Amino acid sequence: MTDPLKTGATIGILGGGQLGRMLSVAAARLGFRTHIFEPGANPPAADVAHSITTASYDNVEALAAFAKACDVVTFEFENIPTDALDMIEGIMPIHPNREALRTSQDRLIEKNFLQGLGLKVAPFADIASADDLDAALKTIGAPSILKTRRFGYDGKGQSRLRSADDAASAFADMAGSPAILEGFVEFTAEVSVIGARSAAGDVACYDPGENVHRDGILHTTTVPAHLSASQRMDAVLLTANILNSLNYVGVIGVELFVTPQGFIVNEIAPRVHNSGHWTQNGCNVDQFEQHIRAVAGWPLGDGSRYADVVMENLIGEDMDRVPELAKQRDTALHLYGKSEVKPGRKMGHFNTIRKPS
Amino acid sequence: MTDPLKTGATIGILGGGQLGRMLSVAAARLGFRTHIFEPGANPPAADVAHSITTASYDNVEALAAFAKACDVVTFEFENIPTDALDMIEGIMPIHPNREALRTSQDRLIEKNFLQGLGLKVAPFADIASADDLDAALKTIGAPSILKTRRFGYDGKGQSRLRSADDAASAFADMAGSPAILEGFVEFTAEVSVIGARSAAGDVACYDPGENVHRDGILHTTTVPAHLSASQRMDAVLLTANILNSLNYVGVIGVELFVTPQGFIVNEIAPRVHNSGHWTQNGCNVDQFEQHIRAVAGWPLGDGSRYADVVMENLIGEDMDRVPELAKQRDTALHLYGKSEVKPGRKMGHFNTIRKPS
Repeated sequence: MTDPLKTGATIGILGGGQLGRMLSVAAARLGFRTHIFEPGANPPAADVAHSITTASYDNVEALAAFAKACDVVTFEFENIPTDALDMIEGIMPIHPNREALRTSQDRLIEKNFLQGLGLKVAPFADIASADDLDAALKTIGAPSILKTRRFGYDGKGQSRLRSADDAASAFADMAGSPAILEGFVEFTAEVSVIGARSAAGDVACYDPGENVHRDGILHTTTVPAHLSASQRMDAVLLTANILNSLNYVGVIGVELFVTPQGFIVNEIAPRVHNSGHWTQNGCNVDQFEQHIRAVAGWPLGDGSRYADVVMENLIGEDMDRVPELAKQRDTALHLYGKSEVKPGRKMGHFNTIRKPS
Repeated sequence: MTDPLKTGATIGILGGGQLGRMLSVAAARLGFRTHIFEPGANPPAADVAHSITTASYDNVEALAAFAKACDVVTFEFENIPTDALDMIEGIMPIHPNREALRTSQDRLIEKNFLQGLGLKVAPFADIASADDLDAALKTIGAPSILKTRRFGYDGKGQSRLRSADDAASAFADMAGSPAILEGFVEFTAEVSVIGARSAAGDVACYDPGENVHRDGILHTTTVPAHLSASQRMDAVLLTANILNSLNYVGVIGVELFVTPQGFIVNEIAPRVHNSGHWTQNGCNVDQFEQHIRAVAGWPLGDGSRYADVVMENLIGEDMDRVPELAKQRDTALHLYGKSEVKPGRKMGHFNTIRKPS
């Protein structure tokens, strides 16, 4: 393990979206500078970063110069091309590590990994052909969901099968991408655990939050979730199991389905997570600072929850609510500075703080 | 009153120190961009700003270009040259306004203004010559303090007189600058009120904090202060009086001496204030966001206090404590990213959060 980063050191962040923006602010709070690498123009993170490189992930010179300008590199989303990571890792350490990223980038590898840890996942099958799908439908049945193995987020790259009759159109939706068929899970709630592991191997988890989705996008996260003390303990222990198995450094998001038979792990995200935004107004050290602390080689901070919070996303035209929300007591607004409003685009979120618990 | 600024608008900040840095972060939280104008190289605010102009306050072209690039202009310290403000104000509104700045820039004007409102101040006299000082010492007496009328902060530009024998050397310390002699006030405590006034004229004050200084620099601020309910009310009302009289827009810091005869106003600072840093971990909306809301024409946010907090400054070599503080529970660190440690230099602060109150 290397020495902890000192004030003034530079943390490189691959990706310049809102997660990069909030990571950048957290880094600044600890006296660090950030350098953002992002292909798109005017990314949200650029407003609060010390430096920005605008280049594509296949620009070898730009990647090398970026890596050399940083003291450590992290990322704000999981779909970074493998070649770009190889290039950077030859120059500068990346946290979380490649194995964690490789595991969560591919739904098939992810499910096999989770099963290998003894954790429950939805029934699944590898789908490389239409024949694979027909065969899988015989065991998994319908309703079920066909998902691309890679590059899916916020419900993208997914096709629902209400019956076996939908097989052909669902397979066509995948456009030749490797996929998996996932059996439908009857769950009573979805919760997520935001966990963190330091370079020294210490693990800390935030109190689980309960998630409600709309149109495949996270709508609200509420803490505390409706869980018993033993469920809470189970959720934290399985997250620690995942973190330790991956020798993980940084923050992870673990989505769980609550079922009468226990938790089923839906997916893991090797980064700060939308369902952890409540920590900005419910904890001394939020998920963004916790991630920065971990990748900087610092000890983890105090993530204990001091209030009941409901986080709600502002999607697209929800931005029209901002003037009213700005007047509302017990409310903290977090906007991403995106000037163009598009349907389905995450524009900001707000935390409504209930009585301290 | 103009329309509230929309997401993506640019807020110009004169001065790039730690206050500018934390204002910049608060602006980003509401979706705004910031543009910093600062003569010095590598200022702390540059790490979290969208744009930075490095130029002196007498560079007319740079000031004009800066003003044109912004949607509103504010400042993080009060000693901005009048000519620079004139230049900018011809192009873009400045909040807080010129009158507030003029009043607080000059200790003589400030004291006359406060007295005019019926508020108590320390006995004082205008000192333009050695004869003025001799005459003033006859009425105000010693111990007393000779202070430059302008450009003083953190105990700079001040000379204490233990007796009339110190008059000559104290006057020499002023190096010809216009000064005032201030009588020594016997106080039991110093408290400060961080107040805010919106463009619509609404006023809100944070709970007063109790300040302890070391070597003329703020050491700790503790909330709640040891004040009765009626003292608390007095402190808030006099702050509202000051804000309304100045037709003020933004956050103000009002320092008060607590005496058996009531509050004596020590000084006012027309900006976010070191003694308000506790709000970052004690309120939903901190003093930085409150200031940004005001200058952006937004409604004020919810600044009610939900926890007991002790803020402590990290000065110079105090930075050696950071590794230990990073491990401490109930503690939130805020570092300014200054790589060079100097004696007396404010490097950061930390908030220790007690039980919610």
